[in-house]
Amino acid sequence: MPKRVDHAERRALIADALMRVAAERGLEAVSLRHVAAEAGVSSGMVQHYFRTKDEMMTFALSVVRERGEARVGKAVAALGADPDPRTLLRAMLVELLPLDPVRRAEGRVALAFLAYTAVRPAVAASLHQETAVLLAFVAGQIRAAQAAGVPPDVDPDAGATALLAVLEGLGVCLLGGHHPAGTALAALDAQLGLIFGRPG
Amino acid sequence: MPKRVDHAERRALIADALMRVAAERGLEAVSLRHVAAEAGVSSGMVQHYFRTKDEMMTFALSVVRERGEARVGKAVAALGADPDPRTLLRAMLVELLPLDPVRRAEGRVALAFLAYTAVRPAVAASLHQETAVLLAFVAGQIRAAQAAGVPPDVDPDAGATALLAVLEGLGVCLLGGHHPAGTALAALDAQLGLIFGRPG
Repeated sequence: MPKRVDHAERRALIADALMRVAAERGLEAVSLRHVAAEAGVSSGMVQHYFRTKDEMMTFALSVVRERGEARVGKAVAALGADPDPRTLLRAMLVELLPLDPVRRAEGRVALAFLAYTAVRPAVAASLHQETAVLLAFVAGQIRAAQAAGVPPDVDPDAGATALLAVLEGLGVCLLGGHHPAGTALAALDAQLGLIFGRPG
Repeated sequence: MPKRVDHAERRALIADALMRVAAERGLEAVSLRHVAAEAGVSSGMVQHYFRTKDEMMTFALSVVRERGEARVGKAVAALGADPDPRTLLRAMLVELLPLDPVRRAEGRVALAFLAYTAVRPAVAASLHQETAVLLAFVAGQIRAAQAAGVPPDVDPDAGATALLAVLEGLGVCLLGGHHPAGTALAALDAQLGLIFGRPG
C-alpha cells in the first residue's frame, strides 16, 4: 500500500520548521535549504510549498495569518453568544498581540514580511484585500456599538483604522522590547476606552 | 595644503548612498561594498562610519532619526511661540509619517531596522531610551492639555503609548500601500480628536 500523504500535516511540518529558523536568524536570512534541513525533509518537498523567496515570504505570512485566525476564532467562541462589540474586539486584538513566545515568533515573521514587501509593492498587494476586510469588520463593530448607544465620538472608519494601527504599533513595540506586556495592554484598553467609553 | 575633510559632509554622502541602495533592494540586502560603490568612495571610508551589519543598521536608523528630528524641529518652529499641545503633536506626527518619497525611503529603513532587531534584542536596546523620552514628551503634552481643560478621558501615559502606536501602525500601513495618505491622516486626526476632543 502506498504511504498515505497527509497534506495538512506536511504543510504544518514545513511551517513549523520555517517558524523555528526564522525565530533564530530572522526570516530574511532564511533559505529554502535551511527550512528543508530543519524539517528533515528534501528541498524538493519544501518546493512543493514555495520555490522563490517571494513565495517563501508569502507562505510564512499565510501561516502566521491562519494561526492567528484560529486563535481569534477560539477566543471569540469562548465569549459565548452575542458578545458586545468592545468585548469581541478586545478578545480578538489581544490574541493578535505578540504576548508569548509563540506569538512573538509569529510577530517577527509578520514584521519581516512587512519590511520585505515595503520595497516590493507587488508582493504586498496580496494583502490589501485582507486588510480591507479586517478594517470593514472593525468599523462595523464600532458602528454597531454607536447604534446601541455608545457616544459617536469617532467616525467608525477612521476609528477602525486607528484601532488596527494601535494593534500594529503595539506589536512592533513589544517585539522591540520597548514595552512590557502590561504597558501594551493598558494602551489597548485606553484606546478601547476612547472609542467605546470607559467600561461601566 | 591638505584637502579639508568635512566630516558632516562625508557622513551625509555615505548616508545618502545608504538610503538610495536601501530604497532599491531593502536595507537587509545591502552590504558595506554596495554603499561604497553607490557613494563612489572606498570601502575603507565607509568603514569609518560602520564596519559590521549591526553597525550599518544602527547607523541607518540614526540617520533616519536625525532627519526626522530636523523636519519635526522645523515644522514645530513654524507654529510660532507656544502652540497648544494638540497642534504641536499633530505637526510632529505628520512629519514622521511616510507621506512622500523621501519619508517613505526613511520609513522603509526604519521598518527594516525593526525587523532586524526583533531577532537581535541587544541591537534594539539602544532605542529604548529614545522611545522612553518620546513617550514622556507626548504624555506631558496630554497632561498639559488636560490641565488646561481637555476632559481627562484617557490616562496620559496610556494615551501617549496608544498615540505613538497609531503613528507606528499607520506608517507600516502606508509603506505597505494599504492606505492612501488621506486615510492615514483621517485616522490620525480621529485619534487626536479622541484624546483632545474635537477641534472647536
